[in-house]
Amino acid sequence: MRLIARALVASTCSAFLLAAAPSPAGDLHGYSADAAKVEREWEAKFRAIPSPDSLREDMRHLAARPHHVGSPYDKANAEWILAKFKSFGLDAQIETFDVLFPTPKERVVELVAPTKFVAKLQEPTVPGDPTSSQQAEQLPTYNAYSADGDVTAPLVYVNYGVPADYERLERLGISVKGAIVIARYFGSWRGIKPKVAAEHGAIGCLIYSDPREDGYVQGDVYPRGPWRPRDGVQRGSVMDMPVYPGDPLTPGVGATKDAKRLALSEAPTITKIPVLPISYGDAEPLLAALTGPRAPEEWRGGLGITYHVGPGPAKVHLRVKSDWSLKPLYDVIARIPGTGAPDEWIIRGNHHDAWVNGAQDPISGQVPLLEEARAYGALLKQGWKPRRTIVYAAWDGEEPALLGSTEWVEAHADELAHKAVAYLNSDTNGRGYLGVGGSHTLEEFINDVSRDIEDPETKLTVWKRNQLNDVANARTSEARDEARRRANLRIGALGSGSDWTPFLQHVGIASLNLGYGGEDGGGIYHSIYDDFKWFTSFDDTSFVYGRALAQTMGTAVMRLADAELLPYDFTGLAETMGRYGREVQKLLKDKQDSVREQNRQIDEGVFTATNDPREPLVPPKKEEIPPFLNFAPLDNAVDALTRAADRYQKALTKAEANGGAALTKTDLKALNATLLQSERALTLADGLPRRPWYRHQIYAPGFYTGYGVKTLPGVREAIEQKNWREADDQIPRVARTLAAETDVITRAAEQLEKLAP
Amino acid sequence: MRLIARALVASTCSAFLLAAAPSPAGDLHGYSADAAKVEREWEAKFRAIPSPDSLREDMRHLAARPHHVGSPYDKANAEWILAKFKSFGLDAQIETFDVLFPTPKERVVELVAPTKFVAKLQEPTVPGDPTSSQQAEQLPTYNAYSADGDVTAPLVYVNYGVPADYERLERLGISVKGAIVIARYFGSWRGIKPKVAAEHGAIGCLIYSDPREDGYVQGDVYPRGPWRPRDGVQRGSVMDMPVYPGDPLTPGVGATKDAKRLALSEAPTITKIPVLPISYGDAEPLLAALTGPRAPEEWRGGLGITYHVGPGPAKVHLRVKSDWSLKPLYDVIARIPGTGAPDEWIIRGNHHDAWVNGAQDPISGQVPLLEEARAYGALLKQGWKPRRTIVYAAWDGEEPALLGSTEWVEAHADELAHKAVAYLNSDTNGRGYLGVGGSHTLEEFINDVSRDIEDPETKLTVWKRNQLNDVANARTSEARDEARRRANLRIGALGSGSDWTPFLQHVGIASLNLGYGGEDGGGIYHSIYDDFKWFTSFDDTSFVYGRALAQTMGTAVMRLADAELLPYDFTGLAETMGRYGREVQKLLKDKQDSVREQNRQIDEGVFTATNDPREPLVPPKKEEIPPFLNFAPLDNAVDALTRAADRYQKALTKAEANGGAALTKTDLKALNATLLQSERALTLADGLPRRPWYRHQIYAPGFYTGYGVKTLPGVREAIEQKNWREADDQIPRVARTLAAETDVITRAAEQLEKLAP
Repeated sequence: MRLIARALVASTCSAFLLAAAPSPAGDLHGYSADAAKVEREWEAKFRAIPSPDSLREDMRHLAARPHHVGSPYDKANAEWILAKFKSFGLDAQIETFDVLFPTPKERVVELVAPTKFVAKLQEPTVPGDPTSSQQAEQLPTYNAYSADGDVTAPLVYVNYGVPADYERLERLGISVKGAIVIARYFGSWRGIKPKVAAEHGAIGCLIYSDPREDGYVQGDVYPRGPWRPRDGVQRGSVMDMPVYPGDPLTPGVGATKDAKRLALSEAPTITKIPVLPISYGDAEPLLAALTGPRAPEEWRGGLGITYHVGPGPAKVHLRVKSDWSLKPLYDVIARIPGTGAPDEWIIRGNHHDAWVNGAQDPISGQVPLLEEARAYGALLKQGWKPRRTIVYAAWDGEEPALLGSTEWVEAHADELAHKAVAYLNSDTNGRGYLGVGGSHTLEEFINDVSRDIEDPETKLTVWKRNQLNDVANARTSEARDEARRRANLRIGALGSGSDWTPFLQHVGIASLNLGYGGEDGGGIYHSIYDDFKWFTSFDDTSFVYGRALAQTMGTAVMRLADAELLPYDFTGLAETMGRYGREVQKLLKDKQDSVREQNRQIDEGVFTATNDPREPLVPPKKEEIPPFLNFAPLDNAVDALTRAADRYQKALTKAEANGGAALTKTDLKALNATLLQSERALTLADGLPRRPWYRHQIYAPGFYTGYGVKTLPGVREAIEQKNWREADDQIPRVARTLAAETDVITRAAEQLEKLAP
Repeated sequence: MRLIARALVASTCSAFLLAAAPSPAGDLHGYSADAAKVEREWEAKFRAIPSPDSLREDMRHLAARPHHVGSPYDKANAEWILAKFKSFGLDAQIETFDVLFPTPKERVVELVAPTKFVAKLQEPTVPGDPTSSQQAEQLPTYNAYSADGDVTAPLVYVNYGVPADYERLERLGISVKGAIVIARYFGSWRGIKPKVAAEHGAIGCLIYSDPREDGYVQGDVYPRGPWRPRDGVQRGSVMDMPVYPGDPLTPGVGATKDAKRLALSEAPTITKIPVLPISYGDAEPLLAALTGPRAPEEWRGGLGITYHVGPGPAKVHLRVKSDWSLKPLYDVIARIPGTGAPDEWIIRGNHHDAWVNGAQDPISGQVPLLEEARAYGALLKQGWKPRRTIVYAAWDGEEPALLGSTEWVEAHADELAHKAVAYLNSDTNGRGYLGVGGSHTLEEFINDVSRDIEDPETKLTVWKRNQLNDVANARTSEARDEARRRANLRIGALGSGSDWTPFLQHVGIASLNLGYGGEDGGGIYHSIYDDFKWFTSFDDTSFVYGRALAQTMGTAVMRLADAELLPYDFTGLAETMGRYGREVQKLLKDKQDSVREQNRQIDEGVFTATNDPREPLVPPKKEEIPPFLNFAPLDNAVDALTRAADRYQKALTKAEANGGAALTKTDLKALNATLLQSERALTLADGLPRRPWYRHQIYAPGFYTGYGVKTLPGVREAIEQKNWREADDQIPRVARTLAAETDVITRAAEQLEKLAP
């Protein structure tokens, strides 16, 4: 379901500006000199294997027909992937779950006043694009997990439909109570839009693709160019995943045949109001029929009309009814057992289900995964023996709600908590730069990997290209300076939007999400046009970036699997936690300043004086100035974490000296067992306020952003939502979490110091 | 011709945050206590006279028919205004000039490939708008002073067509050599677009109104709303007025019957290539036919198409031919002779000619002028005796090239240089805030005036409303702080765009341009829809802002005319010169930094690394880093000016003490004669590089902006254009100018010290 993932992992990854001088223990962290030499040879052999032709043919097959959850071709693809894994010589099977996945039975959107217009709700076939005509198998355009409903009401345009937009509506004197809102895509994950609309009293929600965001404003539309055509629609889930993802009926447990299920009426993650997505072709007559205030300047999209807010005279009839039956999921899981540490797992996944044909989403990420597995098969035959167990997963049901990964993680939670070293995810892949988001314990590691991958277009390392791109795009001279000088490029934190969520945020497994992109814009996301024809016309047409992703992922997986010592880094983690701590303190201070300033302006009469009587605004009300909060526990915890990280780093440097002889000692097992707990320590069993499923205390999807990450979410969201008491409660909880992390690192340092005294 | 004037005088005006404590000399600068009391009474009587009903009826008459230069109704309006002045009891006459003013004979714009489309070039009648149907009298849509021409060539879209856009085209690898360019309005004064296009080798130029700027993107279009309809066209001059305004054939001298004239072929201010303006209705098929690179994001307008740059396959045929005969101008000049200092003149003007009916531009500014004159007539009958001579001018021919004002100023230049105290201009007027631009010697004065005018909507003083608006819109906390604390609100410097230019920039007469606006958006500028129906539907419909302008202008004129001591302020001037000095130094430093950074990025390979092979960019070339320049002469001159200003201020404070008895002394005449030279001292007889007509060394319209001001233009433009030798030459010239100003102020201070020792 990615798309926005690229934006949320804005920071990118890779290593030293100078050709990295080999470290004393060879040049791979966690490896002795001898082991590093061997590892480098295997990795080089690996990277020679993935083939653009294989990637192309695999995509042609997997995207040949619509393959959403419950469709015949979804199952056929799972079986085909299973056969592939087996043909590579891997131990593989399909794990099934039964999940709630609604599919549409009735869909109506019509303008009933001041004129009549019935929305098409249908994406037309494109001549020359053979799969676009497979209408019998295509899921109609809809938003999964919309409540059933049949409503008729005045229409209100709410821009992106995020909380700030409703604050603006309040200043305009517009209420959405009893109205149907129309919001445009982007600006938040789509599921936020009906949620916030319902919170404000709306009774229905339309979400449309404005040409400003991914239509003709961006570039030529399909089939002339890659952008969204007039009748293209973005399908997608609107489940309230910031509460919990996965099957709505089985929160926290795997949706096996016999699992205890909630009644449908009890499921809290289904929307409160009916929702449908529409094209800009269908939206234009609706928006053009609105009067009321002119839309604020930032709200205006790319349609050739004057945008008004409403309400009315446009009146809309919206009807949604779904088939709420359970559907089967087919997760395909392959295992390469570790020879040295079989109970330490490196997990790599990408989903295989799509909304329709899904050449880009997800097949462009799935086919590199298959190439990686094919290459491992070849290496195993040549004698490669990974130290740790490697688990490869082709998830089903990611699109509706991260179903396949979430149910699998929930079903195997205990085992994963004991064994998982890392989870590496991809979702879609395209032409351009390596985008990285993930756990900061893996920031240095993935920088190192990307120093060893060649960018297909420039022949630079992908690290170097990313670094120079960061230099080019730095917004401040400080950021540019950092891009030039910092040993590692920063990686973004992960919110949600793909299958890392249950691993990272529910169980606390160090995770990475990787994908190339940035030169591959387009507007076919979640439409019937995301197909082989589109992908091979406009995206990674020669599949060289598919190969690069396979090379990047495979190198990372092998290097994690073979390392003597798990290559987590804690100094970068500690530094990043310090940044987050300063951020939330600045957030509070900025809020204090802005409330103080606004109150002052109210007293001065600024809002009355600048009110245009012909376009009047409701003046804001005076607010309490946010109180000062006690951030000392957080600052102290970051300080202690920093000291522990430094101690571990010192011990590591010592252990790596002289060829890293210490790293060959047998009692690394206990040390690795300690290290393996380092991400788990960042979770609390009772999770975040009002959403206990989300246990990670450092990274979470925003309750009101959906995809977008909130770091230190308990504290940050309490401040954002002006819940000062909760903010005060959450600060010590984060501090406690960091203290637990400090304990793990201190224990690891002690163990390491014993190895290399 | 205003429109942009509102933007270029972004800063606004008015007085003390605290209710201003009356100064010792009463509460009017330049007045003794007794004189201030009398003056205030006359001003209050004055402000009671202007009447919205009169304003409305005058507008109805003046805008009843098209009245461009040379039209019957232009002459009829001049005679009607003359009769009005006379009916008020004023001494008035018409001064005529004969000027080159081309009117269209042939106009063709057609797409000849890849498909055929013939542009309408015609604004349709709007039902319910009676004057929109006066087609027989309307000037067709055209750009005055376009060269004749008949060209056919591939089309290239150049955004606003300013120099930075051509730098961008160069990065895109696109040349306009031999092409016809299409530029959108805004981003610069329109005459810049064909000038820069021709400099880059284009052979023709179209200028169109994109709906993003003043069409449906902004709001509902006429007649539903005030914005530009699909076929609305902005007429306007494209003469190279940054070289000199006025009649192209008589630079520097009045275009009287017998004036020596250049041959048409020698006139340097006529465009080098043919130009026509078109509507977005006519532009859309042309733009839609372009391929080539996607237009950069900031270049995309509001049409429902993908914007491409070209060149081609769109090929355009453009034909322009004009009637180049001389046309008569009718300036209407009224005089109220001064009783105390008849040879000190206060001049107030607004043009009366329009492109078509011109209800907003210029009649909304002309009718307050008439109300002011009417009120003076009434006051004179009641015994008011202005100390100085008041000159009221209704200019003809402003729209084509500031013709009426420029020829009049050139014809009377010597007398004006001896007698003119100040020129007060308006052009259009609307609903909202008082916008002020002008000489900084008058900053405090106009602040004081605006403290005495009531805003019709809020009943605050217009000063207070402006101050609170500045607080609301401050971009930095420093700017907000200044808006709250500074005694006077800053006024913007004047570039060009209306009739102040010959007064301020050719002769060096302290000038102000005033007009209300900011709540009166629309898109009828220079179209047939700028008429009574539009104005009374959407702008200052109750004419209360017309009354406010009459009150503001009249108060300012009277207060200048009656003051014992001319109320120039020099401390604010000196402070502003210090700001300008710092600005040009920062401009150089920023250029050095950016060239250094860009050269570094070229060395690092940033441009190669970030080049997208499917949308390639030409990397920039390395440049010499700009040298350091000697700004010491400028800094020293500002210092000396500041000391002189402080000395004058100290002497003034002393003179104003004890009721300002010193101000009643008879030898104020000599002091005022000195003060009257203070703006003249800011000019140099040989003017600016390559444009000697522009003599002011502090304020000039930008050579590449047209409307937009360049302060310290000799220095600033040399730096902008990387002409380091010229910059080095210009710094001492500005310093010399400021030294001359310092001399004037020092002499004035000495004279004042003698009055109040």
